[in-house]
Parts: sequence; C-alpha cells; structure tokens
Amino acid sequence: MTQEFILHEKLAADCAVVTDWPLSRILLMKDAAYPWLILVPRLPGLRDLDELTSPDFQEVSREIRSVSKVMKEMFQPTKMNVAALGNQVPQLHLHHIVRFATDPAWPTPVWGKLPAEAYDAEAIVEIRTLFGAAALPGYVPAADA
Amino acid sequence: MTQEFILHEKLAADCAVVTDWPLSRILLMKDAAYPWLILVPRLPGLRDLDELTSPDFQEVSREIRSVSKVMKEMFQPTKMNVAALGNQVPQLHLHHIVRFATDPAWPTPVWGKLPAEAYDAEAIVEIRTLFGAAALPGYVPAADA
Repeated sequence: MTQEFILHEKLAADCAVVTDWPLSRILLMKDAAYPWLILVPRLPGLRDLDELTSPDFQEVSREIRSVSKVMKEMFQPTKMNVAALGNQVPQLHLHHIVRFATDPAWPTPVWGKLPAEAYDAEAIVEIRTLFGAAALPGYVPAADA
Repeated sequence: MTQEFILHEKLAADCAVVTDWPLSRILLMKDAAYPWLILVPRLPGLRDLDELTSPDFQEVSREIRSVSKVMKEMFQPTKMNVAALGNQVPQLHLHHIVRFATDPAWPTPVWGKLPAEAYDAEAIVEIRTLFGAAALPGYVPAADA
C-alpha cells in the first residue's frame, strides 16, 4: 500500500475517537443532542461505499449492522438513521444517529439543522466508555443468526 | 409468513416501480432534480437495517453496492448519497441519490430542501427503462471481486 489512512481533518475536529473495529474507526460526533457514531473504514482514498472491494464491503456491512444493534439496545430509539453522504467531507464515513420523536430535529434529518450541542467533559468520557465497552460484545465478525 | 409485504403508501405515491431484485423492490423517486433510486426490502414489518437477519442483511448490502455501482457508472456523479432514514416513512427503505456539485441542494442533503421537480411522462419511461435494463448486468448475486 503506497497511501496511508489519514482521518479527514473535519472528522478529527468534530469527533472523538471511541475505538477501532477490524476495518473501521468508530468516532463519536461531539453533538450531545443525539447519540451519534460515525464509522470510517481505515483505508486510504475512499469516497463512496461501492469503492470498497467485495470482502471489505461485507466487513463494513457487518460493522454497520453491529453498531446499529449496539446503539438500538443502548438507547431504544424511535428510529436509527444510517447514512453515507459526504458532500462536505469527501472521505467515506457512515453516520449512525439515534433518533427520538422528541429530539430537536425530528422528523427531519439532523444535518445542517442546528449547531452542535457541546458535551461536558465528563459526559463525553462516559459515552466514549459506554461505546468502547460495548464494542466487543456488540461486534460479531463471523456470520450470525 | 403471516404478514405480507405492502409498500408504504407514501413510497407508492412518490415513486415509480423500476424492477424487483432478489430481495428489494427498486423504486425511482419522482424528482427529476436528482437521479434517485430507493431500495425497499420486500419483507413485512421492517423499520431499521439491523432488523434484517444476517443473510438478508448481506443480500441487501450486495444490492446496495450493485445499485450504487450502476448509478455511478451511468451518471459519473460528484458523490453518491446512500441513506436509511425513515423518520417520516417508517418502512425500511434505502435512498441512493446521485449528487452533483451543480445540483440544486448541493452540498446539503436533499431531503426537505426543495419540492420535487416533476418528470415529464417520456423522461420517466426512459429513466425507468434505463435502470430496468441496468438491473441485470449491474446485479451480481454471488461474491464478486
């Protein structure tokens, strides 16, 4: 591999790193209005989902499913929003956002709706720990039922 | 199976059916501002991606990858937007939207931005035919490279 994976500077600025899964780095969006994780496949030069090779796409799909399950079990949301947009940050990244009918942007998508609500320092440590601890039990690399 | 798959009435009203793939119905959103396909897994009672069984999730993932590839080859977009939101239509459905830096909503997400731009009758037949014809060559059910 001639290129190296470098996290896009806007993702690095807007998010806190939670953990690394086999293929993706898991980030917490620093917006306390919504539990919001972002998966970034740690491969250089990716823009769109279909650019992943078939095995990597399968792995990312498993990671998407696992992170969605972890977040749903943790928060019992009204709906999970899962999206690869990237019009402003071209590096492939996958939003996983827990939505409630009571959240400030409901029922519209969250992007560009409201300025991010800051986490206090303690809350961000707690939520990173929560997701970090959930990473292993929630992640099933082989085929599951 | 005691329940039957019924397409949500809002998807039925807003979209034209293109074709059925092994698991998903492929719809064309009737908004001429963006080439926009929606995949709806033909299984009853689904709301979120993680509710699919692992084999169905893998199949839907393959269909997502295939439809993204077909759309990219066809349109050479700036970016593909792929998203499962469903805050307003709870039935699981997967948006695939071709985005250009010149489109009317760029760089923000398209949802709730502008009223849908009507296709004329001829254009909608053409685009359905185009996607219908692309379905088979673009769809690779087994593992690909």
